[in-house]
Amino acid sequence: MSVVTLLTDFGTADEYVGVMKGVLLSVNPHVTIVDLCHHLSPQDLEGAAYMLAAAYRYFPPDTVHVAVVDPGVGSQRAIVALQVEQHYFVGPDNGLFTLVIAHGAVRRAVQVANQALFLQPVSQTFHGRDIMAPVAGYLAQGKDILDLGPPVDPNSLARLVLPTARIVRPGLLVGIVTSVDRFGNLITNIRQADLALLGLHAGLQALEVHVGTTRIAGLSDAYSKAQIQQALALVGSRGYLEIAVNQGHAARRLAVRRGDQVKVICSIEK
Amino acid sequence: MSVVTLLTDFGTADEYVGVMKGVLLSVNPHVTIVDLCHHLSPQDLEGAAYMLAAAYRYFPPDTVHVAVVDPGVGSQRAIVALQVEQHYFVGPDNGLFTLVIAHGAVRRAVQVANQALFLQPVSQTFHGRDIMAPVAGYLAQGKDILDLGPPVDPNSLARLVLPTARIVRPGLLVGIVTSVDRFGNLITNIRQADLALLGLHAGLQALEVHVGTTRIAGLSDAYSKAQIQQALALVGSRGYLEIAVNQGHAARRLAVRRGDQVKVICSIEK
Amino acid sequence: MSVVTLLTDFGTADEYVGVMKGVLLSVNPHVTIVDLCHHLSPQDLEGAAYMLAAAYRYFPPDTVHVAVVDPGVGSQRAIVALQVEQHYFVGPDNGLFTLVIAHGAVRRAVQVANQALFLQPVSQTFHGRDIMAPVAGYLAQGKDILDLGPPVDPNSLARLVLPTARIVRPGLLVGIVTSVDRFGNLITNIRQADLALLGLHAGLQALEVHVGTTRIAGLSDAYSKAQIQQALALVGSRGYLEIAVNQGHAARRLAVRRGDQVKVICSIEK
Repeated sequence: MSVVTLLTDFGTADEYVGVMKGVLLSVNPHVTIVDLCHHLSPQDLEGAAYMLAAAYRYFPPDTVHVAVVDPGVGSQRAIVALQVEQHYFVGPDNGLFTLVIAHGAVRRAVQVANQALFLQPVSQTFHGRDIMAPVAGYLAQGKDILDLGPPVDPNSLARLVLPTARIVRPGLLVGIVTSVDRFGNLITNIRQADLALLGLHAGLQALEVHVGTTRIAGLSDAYSKAQIQQALALVGSRGYLEIAVNQGHAARRLAVRRGDQVKVICSIEK
Repeated sequence: MSVVTLLTDFGTADEYVGVMKGVLLSVNPHVTIVDLCHHLSPQDLEGAAYMLAAAYRYFPPDTVHVAVVDPGVGSQRAIVALQVEQHYFVGPDNGLFTLVIAHGAVRRAVQVANQALFLQPVSQTFHGRDIMAPVAGYLAQGKDILDLGPPVDPNSLARLVLPTARIVRPGLLVGIVTSVDRFGNLITNIRQADLALLGLHAGLQALEVHVGTTRIAGLSDAYSKAQIQQALALVGSRGYLEIAVNQGHAARRLAVRRGDQVKVICSIEK
Repeated sequence: MSVVTLLTDFGTADEYVGVMKGVLLSVNPHVTIVDLCHHLSPQDLEGAAYMLAAAYRYFPPDTVHVAVVDPGVGSQRAIVALQVEQHYFVGPDNGLFTLVIAHGAVRRAVQVANQALFLQPVSQTFHGRDIMAPVAGYLAQGKDILDLGPPVDPNSLARLVLPTARIVRPGLLVGIVTSVDRFGNLITNIRQADLALLGLHAGLQALEVHVGTTRIAGLSDAYSKAQIQQALALVGSRGYLEIAVNQGHAARRLAVRRGDQVKVICSIEK
């Protein structure tokens, strides 16, 4: 039993995801297919990069992760397959894998070019169906990644320039909201390690989080630690600082959205 | 082949459901995972309780039903696992299982406490991923429910106070709309048995249903028995009285919503 | 391993799809279930017919495609099972299969009538659960289609009257937009073969596409061949002429919707 995950901006109102699954199952009837997400905004490469990095480690070794956010389909952009630690990735070389390759060691990378594995005729509009789905099916079946096409230098892979959280002066860390989840929680690009550099040794209670017009004193360790409908900050399940409202919708309550600035202030000098 | 179902308020715009599936498949690669629903409103315990009770009997024996509507994650609320008839349930002890245990016999109930089965480190924000998914994977693999933690008295399980339909005087049954489905059908808390007590022996045509400003004479046995765009009442697929508009959207047409009162009147004395 | 696909207008906010899967897995634990789409507008038979025809060929031989858009449930409409080439179909006989049987040879067709295969008691409101799901499970298990009920003449199957693209005078082809996908792409009922009849031999660049107030000169072969936010026309992944805006939403940008007219003009006489 092998697993293939699908992450796309296709939505679920059309047959596109289903068709990719049909092609996958035609190549490899024993595959277990998991939908990671299909509701990324069209062409949202950043959102896909964050989501993929947040999710892949939770899957079994040898899982094949297919990511299809592909505004350049039909242009000269390459399709690549990567092995990062014990996970495989297939998708356009447009930066989707920026965070995966920033956080894990790329063991092998190839350009997907072996036409014998593709669904023929290959369209210029739907490489998810014609190239990535069948290739993922073969990978999940145990085909060697080197059979997919010529090796590429991992350093040459496309990378997005993603804003990183940074300490702008002692005691002040600045980041941004990178996504708003279904609950309205504001997920930032500030990692636990960034907080530690700022002065987490001083204790979670010494930190103050500013977002929009809201100031939150101290970090919590659970949503339910704040009063109902009160704002709190914690390190969320993705491993990033998150601003939430207990049983409420932080984005609406605090009038904050993706891209907005977040400051963390440590009042105790390191 | 064993089945695990997932019922959450996570939506499908984030990676949370996919991550739970990754953890499940890591524990148990042979499991078949079915999405029951992920579009409950955040923290909608009542909706989850109705949906779970409506669905679980249609699954094979030994199916494990995981329900994650968990506003108290990270607080002192327990996580429980239950065997009700031939079905297993895993979720927070917050009332999600109120109707399941009202309608079926609880054969065994335990508090989930065996840390050796959890994904480590256990977060305070996502027990669906760290505790419920792996535990469900082991249950689906055949692990004894008593290996998950100490037994608990079924009578001590949390229960929601759900409004019940009642006969307020002879010939008058009063209930409420408990949910509105995608078609706009108004699903009530009035069961077939309630109708029988009211005087169903008098015949379906002797009943009159009042909801909002609408009065419906008699019960139908199929949506298509009313004229197109006309209101009708019938016992729906969940086993509850339902008010619908044939090929139309009852909630919008009749200006009725969840929580609104429904009266059934029997003009013939019992 | 056998595959069953589900195409419904049930949405995913209720338990209906999950319940059908439970019934399927109860009959046939080895089936792989794929969601084709559940977000058709309620009662949208035309949309279902187009989607089914667009998708089924991408699935392995012997896949069973279940389509439940069923405004007539509980009325006298029949439920049918078809074998078209190497694919099976189960659904109400209301025109859902119009395009499937127009494009492929019907090898066998039966009326589903063998009560021994149904979930008992059979409701009058949810034949997807009580009849189609279990029957699909048995078909996927290898049960002979002739065991489901008496043969029916394929010519007697219900058919929708779907608008067809036609050449109204030399050099002028008129069709309509049959659907708008998640990206806002306008999918028409004009096939590659229609374009060839019009004068495709004259070259893609000799064609002009008119939709709403927009005129597009020439056909592209990829979305990325137009400037970003510019309109283009191409033969899309369904095999039909499609009008798109590169990295934009054509329906909104061009103010066009489903049902609107599309003209293709060939300035060079054949």
